[in-house]
Amino acid sequence: MKLLNSNNSKDNKNNMQIYSIQSLTKYAADLDGESVYHVSHIKDGILVIGNESKGISPAVMSQVNNRITIPQKGKAESLNAAVAAGIILSHVV
Amino acid sequence: MKLLNSNNSKDNKNNMQIYSIQSLTKYAADLDGESVYHVSHIKDGILVIGNESKGISPAVMSQVNNRITIPQKGKAESLNAAVAAGIILSHVV
Repeated sequence: MKLLNSNNSKDNKNNMQIYSIQSLTKYAADLDGESVYHVSHIKDGILVIGNESKGISPAVMSQVNNRITIPQKGKAESLNAAVAAGIILSHVV
Repeated sequence: MKLLNSNNSKDNKNNMQIYSIQSLTKYAADLDGESVYHVSHIKDGILVIGNESKGISPAVMSQVNNRITIPQKGKAESLNAAVAAGIILSHVV
C-alpha cells in the first residue's frame, strides 16, 4: 500500500504506478465479508491480508472495495496469514 | 500414519482406531494427481501432506488412495506445506 501514499510528483514512473494501483479493486481478508466460495474470479486486484490478531488498520481498510471471508468450521481463533492468503488466492485467481 | 503400523493386538481401543483409520480414504497432496478444483466434497478421510522438497515417502504413498494436485500458476517450486494443506482443505471439506 506504500505507493498509494506517495507524493513524489516528479517521478512520472512512480505516478504511473500509483495510478495503476489506484485503478485496481482492493480486496481484504476480513471476518465480515463475502464468502470466498462466492467471490467471482478476479483478474486484477490487490489483496490485503492483515495481522492475525489485529486485523487490517482502519486507514488501510478505508481503501478497500471488497471484503472476503473464509468461512470457518470449528473454533480456531484465526488462520495464519499466509494460509489465509493461499486459500483466498486459490479460490479467486 | 503411526497407527497404521501398530501391532499391539492386546489394545482393543487401539485396534478400533486402526480399523477406523484403515477404513478411511487416504488422500495425498501430490504434483501428479487430480486437480483440487475437481475433487468432490470429502466427508471423511485422511489428508497426507509431504515435505516441501522431498514429498511423501514411497511407504506412505503406497497407502494412499487418491492424489490431489494444486494447479500452479507461475513457477514457484512448491507451496509451503501448511498453505497447501489449507488450500486443499478449503476446497474439499
